[in-house]
Amino acid sequence: MADEVKLHGFRGSPFGCRVEIALNLKGIEYEFIQEDLNDKSADLIKYNPVHKKIPVLVHNGKPISESLVIVEYIDDAWKGVPILPRDAHEKARARFWAKFIDDKCIPAVFKALGSHGQEQAVAEAQEQLQFLENELKGNKYFGGDNINLVDISATYLAYWLGAAEEALEIKVLTKDKFPKLTEWCENFVNCQTVKDTLLPREILVAFYKKRFGKA
Amino acid sequence: MADEVKLHGFRGSPFGCRVEIALNLKGIEYEFIQEDLNDKSADLIKYNPVHKKIPVLVHNGKPISESLVIVEYIDDAWKGVPILPRDAHEKARARFWAKFIDDKCIPAVFKALGSHGQEQAVAEAQEQLQFLENELKGNKYFGGDNINLVDISATYLAYWLGAAEEALEIKVLTKDKFPKLTEWCENFVNCQTVKDTLLPREILVAFYKKRFGKA
Repeated sequence: MADEVKLHGFRGSPFGCRVEIALNLKGIEYEFIQEDLNDKSADLIKYNPVHKKIPVLVHNGKPISESLVIVEYIDDAWKGVPILPRDAHEKARARFWAKFIDDKCIPAVFKALGSHGQEQAVAEAQEQLQFLENELKGNKYFGGDNINLVDISATYLAYWLGAAEEALEIKVLTKDKFPKLTEWCENFVNCQTVKDTLLPREILVAFYKKRFGKA
Repeated sequence: MADEVKLHGFRGSPFGCRVEIALNLKGIEYEFIQEDLNDKSADLIKYNPVHKKIPVLVHNGKPISESLVIVEYIDDAWKGVPILPRDAHEKARARFWAKFIDDKCIPAVFKALGSHGQEQAVAEAQEQLQFLENELKGNKYFGGDNINLVDISATYLAYWLGAAEEALEIKVLTKDKFPKLTEWCENFVNCQTVKDTLLPREILVAFYKKRFGKA
């Protein structure tokens, strides 16, 4: 039986984008099902009754929710380019940083943006970003020469954050404080596998202008 | 070279306990290093500079932080009883529920306890617990006949929650609303591998009485 792969997502979601990048890295063909977030499909509610959120991957009828759980599933279920390191300790380190990005880094950045750049909130976000700056060392990607789970987890920081900063006319991820992270953003966004999944930047900027009352 | 395994923890922490259960399931010998949480060791700060928190597992000099990351590491690095299912979809489901317990269930329960049993907060916690009740189906453990990642993730709910309820003289996980979950708590706590890691219940009750101003 040929694999049937469907992704319930929303174009413009950085969390859905994580899954698309993982699918593209593995060269998996899939059907993208665009959800209306104000009127979610019966399938989405059925497949993810706990959170009722995108992204949901449905592989041969079996649903998987939570973006990073899906990315790990893709790595487990399909051969090809590895997304997680094979060494147990390196794998644990990748999971640690992915969790850090979700639990600490992105919430702190959201708070800084939500405060419209209030000094204390920006400083707190930068404190978290500094850990990622240090972790990059001299590498092209968090995964070294290739994208791994940590890069995929940081998708929001690479592309969405810049658009939000532009809309708000503030800067959290500054080039002077974060030269390596800034370079990583460019490397990641310019990787063809990633680029293929991204909406044009002006759409995101317009979205954030509206959201933050700057339109 | 023989494996050198050290666990920086704190007796009485449900998160450190997750790691101890996983080590015991695999039959791994380890040195437990009791941390003073008000005066953490230089090693703990060195090994977990991001969060500066227990538990930290140090395996042949290499540190791993975050309790569920450590549990997955233990399953990757050592053979023996599997902690995660081997099937990719079952594995993803286990990770989904473990994440649900950490992100939704435990925070909602903490909030209900912190509110000293305020009706709305208890109802919200019970809404989350209901998902776990349903997920248990007729099984002894979340892992079926054997403990898996989901059971280990729910360690706090199995033992600590009951002690906190007793100290506060309130009930969140009620037997009438959650018959399967109540039975699971008993099964889990009475499993010898788990039992060996637990402090006497009266110590936890006394701790919670002090914490909630009921001493």
